[in-house]
Amino acid sequence: MDYSRLFFCGISKIDDETKTLLAQNNLGGVILYPSISKNYPELIDFFDFVNKKSKKLLISSDHEGGQLETIPFVPPFPGNMALGRTKEIYAREYAKMSARIMRTLGYNTIFAPVMDLYTPKSSAVMGFRTFSSDPNEIIRYSSSFLDGYKSENMLACAKHFPGHGKAFSDSHETVVKVDTPIDVLEREDFLPFEAAVKSGIELIMTSHVIYSAVDELPATLSKKILTSILRDRFGYEGVILSDAMEMKAISSNFSVEEIVEKFFNAGGDMILLSEGTKNFNVFYEVLEKLVKEGRISEGELRKSVEKVEHLINKYFSPQNIGFVKEVADEAMEIEINSLSKRGKVVFLMPFPRQLSQADVLTEHFEIIEKEAKRMLNAKVIKYSSEDPKPISFEDDALIVDMVVDAFRNEKLIEFHKSLPQNTLYVISHDPYDKEFFKEKNYVVTYSTTPVSMGMVFKLIQEIPTRG
Amino acid sequence: MDYSRLFFCGISKIDDETKTLLAQNNLGGVILYPSISKNYPELIDFFDFVNKKSKKLLISSDHEGGQLETIPFVPPFPGNMALGRTKEIYAREYAKMSARIMRTLGYNTIFAPVMDLYTPKSSAVMGFRTFSSDPNEIIRYSSSFLDGYKSENMLACAKHFPGHGKAFSDSHETVVKVDTPIDVLEREDFLPFEAAVKSGIELIMTSHVIYSAVDELPATLSKKILTSILRDRFGYEGVILSDAMEMKAISSNFSVEEIVEKFFNAGGDMILLSEGTKNFNVFYEVLEKLVKEGRISEGELRKSVEKVEHLINKYFSPQNIGFVKEVADEAMEIEINSLSKRGKVVFLMPFPRQLSQADVLTEHFEIIEKEAKRMLNAKVIKYSSEDPKPISFEDDALIVDMVVDAFRNEKLIEFHKSLPQNTLYVISHDPYDKEFFKEKNYVVTYSTTPVSMGMVFKLIQEIPTRG
Repeated sequence: MDYSRLFFCGISKIDDETKTLLAQNNLGGVILYPSISKNYPELIDFFDFVNKKSKKLLISSDHEGGQLETIPFVPPFPGNMALGRTKEIYAREYAKMSARIMRTLGYNTIFAPVMDLYTPKSSAVMGFRTFSSDPNEIIRYSSSFLDGYKSENMLACAKHFPGHGKAFSDSHETVVKVDTPIDVLEREDFLPFEAAVKSGIELIMTSHVIYSAVDELPATLSKKILTSILRDRFGYEGVILSDAMEMKAISSNFSVEEIVEKFFNAGGDMILLSEGTKNFNVFYEVLEKLVKEGRISEGELRKSVEKVEHLINKYFSPQNIGFVKEVADEAMEIEINSLSKRGKVVFLMPFPRQLSQADVLTEHFEIIEKEAKRMLNAKVIKYSSEDPKPISFEDDALIVDMVVDAFRNEKLIEFHKSLPQNTLYVISHDPYDKEFFKEKNYVVTYSTTPVSMGMVFKLIQEIPTRG
Repeated sequence: MDYSRLFFCGISKIDDETKTLLAQNNLGGVILYPSISKNYPELIDFFDFVNKKSKKLLISSDHEGGQLETIPFVPPFPGNMALGRTKEIYAREYAKMSARIMRTLGYNTIFAPVMDLYTPKSSAVMGFRTFSSDPNEIIRYSSSFLDGYKSENMLACAKHFPGHGKAFSDSHETVVKVDTPIDVLEREDFLPFEAAVKSGIELIMTSHVIYSAVDELPATLSKKILTSILRDRFGYEGVILSDAMEMKAISSNFSVEEIVEKFFNAGGDMILLSEGTKNFNVFYEVLEKLVKEGRISEGELRKSVEKVEHLINKYFSPQNIGFVKEVADEAMEIEINSLSKRGKVVFLMPFPRQLSQADVLTEHFEIIEKEAKRMLNAKVIKYSSEDPKPISFEDDALIVDMVVDAFRNEKLIEFHKSLPQNTLYVISHDPYDKEFFKEKNYVVTYSTTPVSMGMVFKLIQEIPTRG
């Protein structure tokens, strides 16, 4: 049996390892960390890869709004605590607005809302992520929030069950214990989750906090909390997802075997791993072994897989922004006969300037310069389009020459043509410029945008380094 | 009769002048320039104002994708020329994706697609904004583009009629003349517009180019072009919008009176003014005068007003992101007894640091620092949260002190409390911190986000400067 649906993996980079993880396994979900969400070339690369190579799956972010915002295309928001002091309807509006944009990009799952109770001196990890210190207020705002997500068909995840608010330290960093009596927990922290279950929530994330009045194990591994309370008492039939198992409150105190065995036997369905490429195989193999040894029930896991499949079928949509990469890619016209990447890459670009009131080239050029450095480790040299001066290069340099509107200036044409043999001309602004570079190596991008230039940089990355 | 519906005004700033323009007139539309679209506090201020004070109207952007992108929440795109070399369906996908996000923000109109024909040596203003040099290809891609906008109920605007592609210079800067024979124009540049009319387009923007084979007047002012060709021959019944009348091709050659008289008598419906606050009254008064003098028909203008009203009713939606400002505003708890703004504003903020893995405070702090300088012209001083050192201030300084998690550190509390009398404490991260500042001037924001801090800066802007 394939258990990979029972894993939700954090990914931070779209490299070969990540692509292998996605292509070879039937993951239940991935959470895209800020290094992808905030890095547009990585983001469209991810969705393009999903379109071409991966099965459908849950695609999540932890863009809660306020203190934790990771997707630059979602407008900034003050956050839940400010929200909790205003009109309830705004909770719905924000959830709707943010979900609509996230879905447009291709996300289908969101690790929000935070349903924890604010307490004086809550851990800084809570900050202003919570709606209120009054459970009934949390219920009011989170219901409105969940309504908004629902209206955009976004899978929401209530967190962190059974409530992280009374923890004075941060389970990312250390073991955290709450000694509050059970009757207080019942009438405070548990309430918002109980209400969310009643209203039909389908995904709940556990906290790694120890509630000593209930169990000596952290909630994530506690059968008393996940099964006796959440399943049996609250009647929750949805998916239970762990918080990231790499967090110190779990990983410093339990072996992988203990984590896997205890979590599934406690009633959990899906394991969140923040370092997917590093840890998926380790956890998967342990899970397989424990099933073989009869220490975890295959029948129960099958039910979990079915529940996850149900969510994927309900929420996955093939619409995403992967096509943007496709457009930049397909539009390119490539004529490369011989280029050598023995030496350093030198990126030649014009000094930023606006060619007309109908462009944002100046801003684009700034991003492109950064990307050339990041992706190619290139030395960047800027030339003046009005009065280009000769440049000398190291013998083995690979020159990438961004040609912008050459035909307008004889001197500029001469400048470009005088560059060494080992030059790739990137004809970016006017396709007719290519007539000047017929016998040379060139790429026509039909665009000077960072997206298109990024495709060129990728192409250069793929030129083999020859000795 | 009220003719203000016949004006589409460019706005660049949400100041008192703009607010007066919007509140006192029944404008047909506004186009938000990048200084608003890219400046989030201005953007939410605009929509908040629309929600509270203005009538419904068209709200536009010129975010075409590619060379001209002005809304940071719309993911970047290579542009039309790259698009024109890929699958047609991507045109629809891009229009749909961008429109969906623009509508979510509150825009209902888009000055796109560009339907001009690409020509070797087209003016740089065309750049890679056009789909192709083949009119049939333009029709193919622009239809798909328009479909995408339509599916999101976004009002599209075909431009620049009857085609700007053969112009070798830029009408922003100078008079532009095209001497192409009429039969060539008819089978090339005109075709995409003719097709758009057939497919039911509702808004067309004119070009300021002179087509000498048809008329000696620029298209915008030419009855032969707007009425004989567009209305009579193509059968267009939608709204004709001028390009911005401040562009040199028009404004250096015609008086306001000539512009207004010729445009409406040529068959135009709406005048675009890029500098709304400066020019609306001037143009409006001239229009009124010309009607009184019988040089423009009131009956025709009434029909134009009705057409504009029809578009507004069809496309305006009250959903927008103005509520974000409302949340930041309503959440604030203000206790100010006496503050004097005689001297310079000093903004005290902690050195940026992440308090936990679940925040993006570091990035927020960078934005807040910039905003303090921009909005308050403040001197920014950073303190260390671990080990704050005493600071000396000018006697008349107004100190704005951003308090983040004071209770965690006795020394920090002492530091904050030791500040001069004329201090406003901004309790931003933990509301319980306010217990330390009971007798002082304070604001509780329930959020450290730039949105919420922006509201505080606004509040300070409004403190009267006392002598």
